[in-house]
Amino acid sequence: MASSNTGSNNASDRKLTRDSSMDSHARFNLSPVPSVEDDEDDGVGYPSGQGLSSIDQNDSGEEAESLANDAGNTTTVTMYDANHGPSSPSAKKYDHQITDVTYVVRKHYENFETIDWLKDLMRNRIRHRNLRAHRRENWQKRFAFWFDKWSGWICVLLVGISAGLVAGFVDIGAKWMSHWRTGVCSSAFWLNREQCCWGSRDVEFDDVHNELCEYWQSWSAIFGMNELSASAWFFRYFMFTFWSVIYAAFIVVLVVGSAPYASGSGIPEIKTILSGFIMYGYLGKWTFFIKSIGMIFATSAGLIVGKEGPFVHISCCCGNLFSKLFPKYGHNEARKREILSAAAATGVSVAFGAPIGGILFSLEEISYYFPYKTLWRTFLCCMVGALVVRTINPYGNGHEIQFPVEYNVPWATFEVIPFIGLGALGGLWGTLFIKTNIRWLKYKKTCQIGQYPRAEVIILTLITAIICYPNQYLRLTMPELIRRLVGQCHVDDHMDLCDYARDKPIGTATAKLYASLAGPGIHRAIWQLSWALIVQITLVIFTIGTKVPSGLIVPSISIGAIAGRIIGVITEQIAYQNQHLAILRHECGVSNEHCVTPGLYAVVGACAFLGGVSRMTVSLVVIMSEVTGGLSYIVPLMVAALTAKWVGDAFGEGIYEENVKLSGYPYLENRESFRFTLKAGEAIRANRSSEAIPLACIVQDGMTILQIDTLVRRHPHSIYPVILSEDFPCIVGQVQRRDLLAVLKSRKTQLTFAQPKPLLNRKVSVVSMSNLLNKSGQPSTLGMRRASLALQASRVLQLHKLVDRAPIIVTDQTPVEAVVDMFRKLGCRQIFVTKNGRLQGILTRKDIIRLMHEANVSGRFEH
Amino acid sequence: MASSNTGSNNASDRKLTRDSSMDSHARFNLSPVPSVEDDEDDGVGYPSGQGLSSIDQNDSGEEAESLANDAGNTTTVTMYDANHGPSSPSAKKYDHQITDVTYVVRKHYENFETIDWLKDLMRNRIRHRNLRAHRRENWQKRFAFWFDKWSGWICVLLVGISAGLVAGFVDIGAKWMSHWRTGVCSSAFWLNREQCCWGSRDVEFDDVHNELCEYWQSWSAIFGMNELSASAWFFRYFMFTFWSVIYAAFIVVLVVGSAPYASGSGIPEIKTILSGFIMYGYLGKWTFFIKSIGMIFATSAGLIVGKEGPFVHISCCCGNLFSKLFPKYGHNEARKREILSAAAATGVSVAFGAPIGGILFSLEEISYYFPYKTLWRTFLCCMVGALVVRTINPYGNGHEIQFPVEYNVPWATFEVIPFIGLGALGGLWGTLFIKTNIRWLKYKKTCQIGQYPRAEVIILTLITAIICYPNQYLRLTMPELIRRLVGQCHVDDHMDLCDYARDKPIGTATAKLYASLAGPGIHRAIWQLSWALIVQITLVIFTIGTKVPSGLIVPSISIGAIAGRIIGVITEQIAYQNQHLAILRHECGVSNEHCVTPGLYAVVGACAFLGGVSRMTVSLVVIMSEVTGGLSYIVPLMVAALTAKWVGDAFGEGIYEENVKLSGYPYLENRESFRFTLKAGEAIRANRSSEAIPLACIVQDGMTILQIDTLVRRHPHSIYPVILSEDFPCIVGQVQRRDLLAVLKSRKTQLTFAQPKPLLNRKVSVVSMSNLLNKSGQPSTLGMRRASLALQASRVLQLHKLVDRAPIIVTDQTPVEAVVDMFRKLGCRQIFVTKNGRLQGILTRKDIIRLMHEANVSGRFEH
Repeated sequence: MASSNTGSNNASDRKLTRDSSMDSHARFNLSPVPSVEDDEDDGVGYPSGQGLSSIDQNDSGEEAESLANDAGNTTTVTMYDANHGPSSPSAKKYDHQITDVTYVVRKHYENFETIDWLKDLMRNRIRHRNLRAHRRENWQKRFAFWFDKWSGWICVLLVGISAGLVAGFVDIGAKWMSHWRTGVCSSAFWLNREQCCWGSRDVEFDDVHNELCEYWQSWSAIFGMNELSASAWFFRYFMFTFWSVIYAAFIVVLVVGSAPYASGSGIPEIKTILSGFIMYGYLGKWTFFIKSIGMIFATSAGLIVGKEGPFVHISCCCGNLFSKLFPKYGHNEARKREILSAAAATGVSVAFGAPIGGILFSLEEISYYFPYKTLWRTFLCCMVGALVVRTINPYGNGHEIQFPVEYNVPWATFEVIPFIGLGALGGLWGTLFIKTNIRWLKYKKTCQIGQYPRAEVIILTLITAIICYPNQYLRLTMPELIRRLVGQCHVDDHMDLCDYARDKPIGTATAKLYASLAGPGIHRAIWQLSWALIVQITLVIFTIGTKVPSGLIVPSISIGAIAGRIIGVITEQIAYQNQHLAILRHECGVSNEHCVTPGLYAVVGACAFLGGVSRMTVSLVVIMSEVTGGLSYIVPLMVAALTAKWVGDAFGEGIYEENVKLSGYPYLENRESFRFTLKAGEAIRANRSSEAIPLACIVQDGMTILQIDTLVRRHPHSIYPVILSEDFPCIVGQVQRRDLLAVLKSRKTQLTFAQPKPLLNRKVSVVSMSNLLNKSGQPSTLGMRRASLALQASRVLQLHKLVDRAPIIVTDQTPVEAVVDMFRKLGCRQIFVTKNGRLQGILTRKDIIRLMHEANVSGRFEH
Repeated sequence: MASSNTGSNNASDRKLTRDSSMDSHARFNLSPVPSVEDDEDDGVGYPSGQGLSSIDQNDSGEEAESLANDAGNTTTVTMYDANHGPSSPSAKKYDHQITDVTYVVRKHYENFETIDWLKDLMRNRIRHRNLRAHRRENWQKRFAFWFDKWSGWICVLLVGISAGLVAGFVDIGAKWMSHWRTGVCSSAFWLNREQCCWGSRDVEFDDVHNELCEYWQSWSAIFGMNELSASAWFFRYFMFTFWSVIYAAFIVVLVVGSAPYASGSGIPEIKTILSGFIMYGYLGKWTFFIKSIGMIFATSAGLIVGKEGPFVHISCCCGNLFSKLFPKYGHNEARKREILSAAAATGVSVAFGAPIGGILFSLEEISYYFPYKTLWRTFLCCMVGALVVRTINPYGNGHEIQFPVEYNVPWATFEVIPFIGLGALGGLWGTLFIKTNIRWLKYKKTCQIGQYPRAEVIILTLITAIICYPNQYLRLTMPELIRRLVGQCHVDDHMDLCDYARDKPIGTATAKLYASLAGPGIHRAIWQLSWALIVQITLVIFTIGTKVPSGLIVPSISIGAIAGRIIGVITEQIAYQNQHLAILRHECGVSNEHCVTPGLYAVVGACAFLGGVSRMTVSLVVIMSEVTGGLSYIVPLMVAALTAKWVGDAFGEGIYEENVKLSGYPYLENRESFRFTLKAGEAIRANRSSEAIPLACIVQDGMTILQIDTLVRRHPHSIYPVILSEDFPCIVGQVQRRDLLAVLKSRKTQLTFAQPKPLLNRKVSVVSMSNLLNKSGQPSTLGMRRASLALQASRVLQLHKLVDRAPIIVTDQTPVEAVVDMFRKLGCRQIFVTKNGRLQGILTRKDIIRLMHEANVSGRFEH
C-alpha cells in the first residue's frame, strides 16, 4: 500500500490511510492536453490567446521556472491547465481543490548522475528568452538582462584572476618551502634562496648553478657547525629529510582526513566532469583550499610530483565557485561546463604561462562541449591568468615564460634522427609508466598498503629524501632541474654540465660557443644524471596515485629533460668527434660552430616523454614552444611528439584514459572507434539479457496511483517512458523518477490536508472515462469529450507537465555507432529504441559505455 | 504510364510497353526481411550462419560497396536475400530470373546538394571494418588496409607540400610582376628589385625605403630618358598604368571566360562547402590553376586585393585534388571535408607563415566538422606548408615571418586607451565596409555594370593605377607597405616615417632611439598616409566582389596598419610633448626612452581592422602574433580584436556571413542563437502552409510500380519516407529518390531482357498476399508465410535493401532548437517528425535555414 511508507508522524494517521487507499484507485492523467482540433488538420493557430501562453509555459516541461524569484529549486506550479478553463467552465469551481499540486522542478542533479546536455541547454535558452522578453518592463529586468548577457565574461575574468593569484601564491610558497629544507635566509627568513641572494654583492654558484651567498645560511651553519665537516653534511641531510617528512605528513593527514578529492592530479576526473558527470564536492571550496595548500607541501616535500596538473583542478574549482554567483551558470550544469572548460585551459595557462597551449589543451584533451563562444572567453580567461602570474612574477625572470630557452642556433637536419629516437623513448617510457603504475594501483587496492595511505606517503617521502639528497641534481626542485637542463651553456658558467675542454680563445661574453670535447665535469654530470633518471623513473611510478596532490606533467618533463640532455651531450660529442663526415660538415659549417645544442635535446626529450604519458599532440607542441618561448623549434617538437604518440598508442592508451577506466567513471570516450557491428535493437537485447529486467513503462492514461507507486518502487530507473497504451507501446514522452516521487509525495500530503472537502471522497469513474478515449487520446464524440474533460479537470491529477514530450528516438535498425554519435554529440542521457513505432527499449549512456567496454575487452560483437 | 518516358530507342518497343504495363501492377516489397522469431522475444542469435552474414551486408543499405573493386560508383548487388534461401528452398529455382537487379549505390551527390554526414561517416566505418576484417587474407589486402590507415597522413602531407609550393610560387611571381611595372633588372630580368639590388655594392633607399641601385633600371631609363625630367616621370606613370591594365585585363578575361569560380576570396564558399554543401568544380583543377595565376596578376595589377584569402581556396583545391587519390576521402564527401579543413588551415599557414593561427582559423572560422584526428593532421599539414614556404623563402628575410617586428620595448598601460580606440575604429570600418560593399554588390546585380565584368575590372584597375602612382605609399605593393608601417625606425633609416628631429647624440647603431619631435618628413608622411587611407578605403569597397581573385585580409591589414601608424605617431608626439604628466613619466621612465612605438600601433591597427571585417577572435590574435613573430604583444592585440568585434557585432554580421547570405548558400549558421519558440510540429505546418504540397510517402508493402513511378514523378523530393501503411503512417525507413529512379529504370530494362521467361508474364496475386501480412510484416500463420515468402522471392522486386531503416526521428513536441542542434551536430539532411508514432512531416536542412532566415527577418515566431 502506498500509505505504508508515508511516515506515521502525522496526527491524522487514520485519515491518511483512508485517503491514500482511495487515492490508489485514482488515475494519473499523463496525456497531453487534448486540443479541440483533429489530429490531422490542427493548424498553426490556437483556439484562444491562452493557447499561446500555454506554449510559452510548456517548453519541455520546464516552463515553470519562475525566473524572478528562483530562490531555491522548488517551484510552485498550478497544475490546472489554462486550456481547460474556457472549454469547461463547470470545472472552475473545483479549481482550488486539486490544482495546487507542488512539485520539484528538476534543476539539480543527484551525485554521480550524468547530465542531460540537450535539456539543460534548452532550459537555458528558455531562460534567456524570458529575460529578453521582459527586459523592457523595468530597469531591474533590464539590468538582469544585461547582467546575464555579460555574466560569462565577468565570470571568466574572475576565474582568470583568481587562478592566476593562486598559481602565483603556490609557486612562491613551494619555492620558499623547498629552499627552507636546505637553509634559511638570515637577512629575511621569508625569502627563498634566490631572492635572498639578490641583495648580496658577491654571489657564487655551485656545480649545479645554485646561488651561494653570505645571507643564505644552511642549517648546519645556523647551528654553528663547520660547513665542510662530515657531520655538518649529515646534519644537513637529516634536516632535508626531516622537513620533507614533516611536509608530507602534514599534507597527507589533511588530505586523507578532510578532502580526499584533493589527491591525485584531478585531470581524469575533470575530464569526466566535463563530459557531463556530476561529482558534488569535487570542485568544492574545501577541495580547492586543501589542494592549493597540498600542492605547496607535496612539491616542497621533494616527492616526484608536479603542480601543473593540479592547477587544472584548482582552476576548475575557481570556475565552479565563481559560477555559483551567476545563475546562468550556477543553476545549469551544461552551461557551467563552459566555464569549467575555460578554467581548465586557464589551469594550464597559469601553470606554464602558455595561454594558447592552454586553450588547445582544453580543446584537445579535456573538454567535451566547446562551443564557439567559449573559445573566446577561454582565451580571455587564459590571458588574464597568465598576466596575473606574470605580474606576481614567481619565476623571477620578469616574464611569463617558465623555462626560457635563449639559444638561437638553428637545428640541423641530421638531428631529426636523435629526435625520433627521443620520441620513441618517450613513447616506451609512457607505456612502461602507465602499465606499471596502473598495475601498482590495482595491487594496492587488494593488499594491505592501500589501507594505510598516510604511512605510505610518509615512508615514500622518507625514501625519496634519503635517495635524492646525495645527488646534486635530485636535490634541486624539479622546475629548477628542468631549467638547468634546457639552458644553454654560457661562457661564464661553471656548472658541471658546461665543463667543456675549450680549446679556442673566447672573445666577448656574447660570442658563440664552439663545440669542444667534454671535460671531466660533464662526465661527472652525465653519470649523476643517469642515476637521477633511474631514481625518478622508479619513484614516480610509486608516487603517482598516492593520497597527495600529485601532477604527472612536471615529473614527465623532468625525466624527459634528463634523458634528452644525456642524449644531447652524447650526440654533441659524436658530432664533434666526427666533424670530417660530409653530412656533419655541411650542416655544422666549417667554422665548427655549435651545431648540436644539448639544451634543445632536453626540450625535445621533455616533449617526447610528456607526450608518451599523456598522448597530447598539438597542445603539447604549442605548450612546449610557449614554455620555452621559441617558435623556431616547432618541427623538432612535432617530430618527437608524433613519434611518442605513435609508439605509445601501439601499446595502449594514455594515462588519463587509463585512470578514467581504473576509477570506473562513466566517460564516453570521444575518439574511440568501434570494431563491432550492432544495431540498436540488438544492443538492447544484449544489455537486457544480462540484466533480465522487463521494461518499466507508464501508460499514458491507464494507470492508478498505486500502480505508479509500485512501478516506481520496483524499478528504480531514473527515467520512465510514457507510452500510448499497453497494446500499442508508442512512446509519447518520458518522466523522471525524481519528479514522479516528488508528486507522489506531495499528492499524499495534499490529500491529507484536503481531506475535509467532500468531493475528494467521491469515487469518480475516471477509469471508465479512459475507455472512451481512443489511442490518440481523442474521445469518440465531442460531447462525450467535453464531459470527460470536466471530469478530468476536477478529479485527475494533471501530470502532463511532468512529461517531457521530446524524447530522443531511434529505430531498432539504427547502427550502434550512430546511437553513440548521438550520445556524444547531443549529450542526451537516454535514447528510446522503437520498432515500427513501438517502444522496444531504452539505451542509456551507461549502457553504451558498458557495451563499448565489453566489446573492446571480448571482441564479442565483432564480425 | 510508366512506359511513356522510358525512351523508345529500344528495338523491343512493343514488348517493353506490355511489360511495363504488367509491371505497374506488380508491387514493391519494402518491408524488412521477416524473421522467424516473434517481435517480442527474438534473441541475439540468428537462425542460421547466413543470418550473420546478412547483417554484415545489411548495414544501413550501403553494405554493398565491394571494396576491392570499387572502380566506379555503380555496383551490382544481388537483391535476393540470403535469409530466404533456407526457409523456402522452393524459391531457389527462380533465383536467376529476378534476383540480379542492379542499382546504383549512392556514393556521389548531385551538384548543390547537402551531404548526409551521418550516413557518410557510417559508410566509412563499414568500409574500414571490411578492410580490417579481410586484412589477414593476403598481402594485397594487408597493403590495402595499411594504405588506407595511413592515407590521411600521406594526403595531408601532399596537400601541405603542394600548398607551400604554390604559395611560394605565387609570392615570388607577384613580387616580380609588381616590380616589373616600375622597371627591369638590367643584370637579370627575372629578378625583382630587391633581389636585383642584392648583388649591387652601393644600394641607396628612397623616401619609402625602396632600394635604388645601378642594376635596377626604371622604364624611363631603359628608353634613354632623363630620369629627372617631367616627361620621364609621366612615362614611368604611363608604363605603371599600362602594365597594371594589361595584367588586369589578362586575368579578368581568363576568369570570366574559363573559371568563374576563381573570382573572389572563396572563404564564404569554402565555409559552405565544409558545412556539407556540394559545389562541383569549385575545387577543381581548372579553378585551382586559374586562381593561382590570377592571384599573381590581380595583386600585381595594383588592385586593392590580397592573396591570403584566395590561398585558403587554393589549398582546398589541393586538398580536393589529392583526396581523389585516396578512396577513403575521394569517395566519401564527409571524410573529404576533414582533408579540406586541414587544407583551409594550411592556406592561412602558408599565407602568413602562421601554422597555429591557421589551425585556429580553420577551427574557429570555417570548419564545421573538426574531429580530434583532424586536429593533429591539420597541424602536420600546416607545418609542412609553412616549412616549404620557408625553404622557398619568398619574403627574402630567411624565416617564415612575413611582417617581422623587431622592437623589444614593452607596451605601457596607458596605451590601452589608444588600442581600444583603434579597436573601435576597426569595428566601425568593418561595418562601413560590409554595408557599403554588400549594397554595391546588390546594386550591381540589378544595374548594367554587372553585365560587363571585364570592363568593370579594367576601368577599376585604370582608376586605381592613376590614383595610386603619385602617392609613394600607394605605389608600393600592400605587403611592402605593411612591412614599412609595422617596422621600427632604425638610426640609419632615411625614410620619411623615421624623420625625427633628434636632439640627442646617438651612439652605436643598436642604441635605443629616444623619443623626439617629429621632423618635416614625418609630417609629409602622415599627410600622404592619410590620403592613402582614404584611397584604399574607397577603392576596396568597389574592388572586392569583382571577377578577379580578391582577398580581403591584406587590404584590411593594410588599411588598419595605416590608421594605426598615424594614430601611433600622434600618440607618440602627444606623449613626447607631455612628458611631465605623472602617468607618462611613470611609464616612459625618466630617461625618456622610446615608450610609444608607432610600429606597434600599426600592428594593433591591422589586427583591429581585420577583426572588424572578419570578426575573427582568437585565431586573429594568434595569426597576428605569429605574423609579427612576437608573443609579447598578445594583450594589445586582444584588446583591439575584442573591441573591434564588439563594436562590429553591434551593427551586423561579419563579411563572410554576409557573403554567404548574399549568395544564398544553404549554410546552417553554427553560432546563431534563436529568438523564436517553435515546436517541430509547428515548424512543419509553418513550412507546409507556404508550399501546400502534401506529404509524399511510400507505403511499405502496398504500392504498385505504377504508383511509385507516379509518386516519384509528381513529388520531386530527394527523399521519401517509407511508412507501415496508410492507416497507420508509422515511419519504418527512408528511400532516396535517386535510388528509386535507378531501380525503376533498371527494372524496366531488365524486364525487357527477361521477357522470354514465361513466369514473368503470369499475374501472380502479390496484392492479395500483402493482405495476409499484418502491420509488423508478419504473416498470420507460419505455413501461409512460407508460401508467401516463396511468392515474394520469385515475383516481387526486393527493394528492402534500398530502404535506409535508420531515419532520424523526433516527436512533434520537440523544440525547433533541439532539431537545429541535431542538424548541426549530427549533420543529417532530413528529420522525420512523428506524433504518437505517426509520421507528421519532414524537416530538411533547407527548411530549417529558411525558417531561421524568416524568423530573423520578420521576428515572426518570437514570443
